[in-house]
Amino acid sequence: MNTSEAPIFIGIDGGGTKCRAVVFDREYNQLSTAVAGPANVAKYGKLAYDEMLAAVREALHRLNLEIESEQHRLFVGAGLAGVNVPSAARALQQWQHPFARFDFTSDIHAALLGAHNGNDGAVLIAGTGSCAAGLKGNAVKQFGGHGFALGDKGSGAWLGKTALAKTLESLDGVILASDFTRDLQQHLSIRSANDIVDVYNQAPPSAFAELAPLVIAAARDRDPIALPIVVEGAVYLSNIASRALIYSGNKLALVGGVIEGILPWLDENLNPSTASAHHGPEHGAVIYQRTKLQAKGQ
Amino acid sequence: MNTSEAPIFIGIDGGGTKCRAVVFDREYNQLSTAVAGPANVAKYGKLAYDEMLAAVREALHRLNLEIESEQHRLFVGAGLAGVNVPSAARALQQWQHPFARFDFTSDIHAALLGAHNGNDGAVLIAGTGSCAAGLKGNAVKQFGGHGFALGDKGSGAWLGKTALAKTLESLDGVILASDFTRDLQQHLSIRSANDIVDVYNQAPPSAFAELAPLVIAAARDRDPIALPIVVEGAVYLSNIASRALIYSGNKLALVGGVIEGILPWLDENLNPSTASAHHGPEHGAVIYQRTKLQAKGQ
Repeated sequence: MNTSEAPIFIGIDGGGTKCRAVVFDREYNQLSTAVAGPANVAKYGKLAYDEMLAAVREALHRLNLEIESEQHRLFVGAGLAGVNVPSAARALQQWQHPFARFDFTSDIHAALLGAHNGNDGAVLIAGTGSCAAGLKGNAVKQFGGHGFALGDKGSGAWLGKTALAKTLESLDGVILASDFTRDLQQHLSIRSANDIVDVYNQAPPSAFAELAPLVIAAARDRDPIALPIVVEGAVYLSNIASRALIYSGNKLALVGGVIEGILPWLDENLNPSTASAHHGPEHGAVIYQRTKLQAKGQ
Repeated sequence: MNTSEAPIFIGIDGGGTKCRAVVFDREYNQLSTAVAGPANVAKYGKLAYDEMLAAVREALHRLNLEIESEQHRLFVGAGLAGVNVPSAARALQQWQHPFARFDFTSDIHAALLGAHNGNDGAVLIAGTGSCAAGLKGNAVKQFGGHGFALGDKGSGAWLGKTALAKTLESLDGVILASDFTRDLQQHLSIRSANDIVDVYNQAPPSAFAELAPLVIAAARDRDPIALPIVVEGAVYLSNIASRALIYSGNKLALVGGVIEGILPWLDENLNPSTASAHHGPEHGAVIYQRTKLQAKGQ
């Protein structure tokens, strides 16, 4: 096979804040990567498709390749937020994509496939949002992950939001302030409750998640406001992780930007079952596509 | 004075979900009333002005009067959500309104003036949102009322949101379901967690507040999920009400659509200080304007 005819495998991880494309060779060596804007297909629709294209275009460009000239050998797999919404999945199935082949599944499924290299297993994800999930055969079962407004307890956004709510209560004098709430006020140059409301009332989850490291650092110092917040989040994360672990009957991988910080408070009974994630979700998305191709005998 | 030259007093209560205009005679008898869309001036800007105009126009129309022909004798006072945001207040001051005179203050200030007929006092408001405030002389101090995302604990929207979050946790199996969560599922025709997320993830506070009566009814039946939610809300409301009461040094008026339901759980130490609200916030807005006119010697 001529080199220029060899298939190019591209995995996409599309979330609510950004989307990443990774170009792999046949042995899953990472050749190039690029990031574009949010690709939650339920929330952003066709704009999410444009972001996927932008990430793929840039990742190829770094290899001096173009989508247009390589179209016939681009095999793209994507794990995307929002495909659990049936109307979003139906719309995406109709997408006139410029690839030889495009397969998609949920971001959670791709994360599971990547973390356990295609085998059964569970993940606990704590980043901007939070979620646990188990993979057993082809079936994925999700626990938590219900979004910023109603769930995502223990996530970076939830830690930040809860800390701000407590800071507001301390400014109202209905709870005692702590070193942490005073530090947070100073950090954000807040003089009154209105300053917080002005900035955060319509802010996206990522703006709240930026505060998570401060909450975790204060919990480590046993601050009386920050510690109970982190403990409540960690108890919830331990609960959803346990359910996912039992469902999958295998190992639990911990992933996401907040996991390391919250680790000391997670239920230690989970420790013996914990394993490092093998690969990222972009890799998982390519595994997903290969499984589909194999099922078709291609 | 010719009847057609007598001033017409109009009070406006402008909130985040609707705005109401009431036409009063000189003795504060209510002659007519009309409701229009949301008038939070920080959130809706000039659209809020249009809603105020629509409510005034309709209230006058019901008396066979028009803004245009009565312009010279229309004295309009408004209590508006969002005027605590300095930029919104500055913009409103520049409004080329079609009235003889237009004065505005915050919705909270107008509620206080109405509830205590212009005297010092406190209010606890629990409707779609929640808030307490005290009036002492001309100074208003607010406790809570930080909006749906970060505060409004104990409000109708908060009760509904918290109940849905708990129902999601029960669907994930991380807490036990109760009669209440099962009834709520049935009431909303929910089969899976995704059904809740689809409907409520971007829903306005009023959609959550519609569920509050169900939460309160279940708490009355001592449901193990609903009862702690209502108790937590009531403890918070009691806390902010106490601070407002102490600040004002007078009586506490309880107002809003959720107050009656949550009353059994409010701190009974507040009872001796509780008084019925004399008047509504539209009346309070007219009192506000009269006080300003008197201060100017008009």
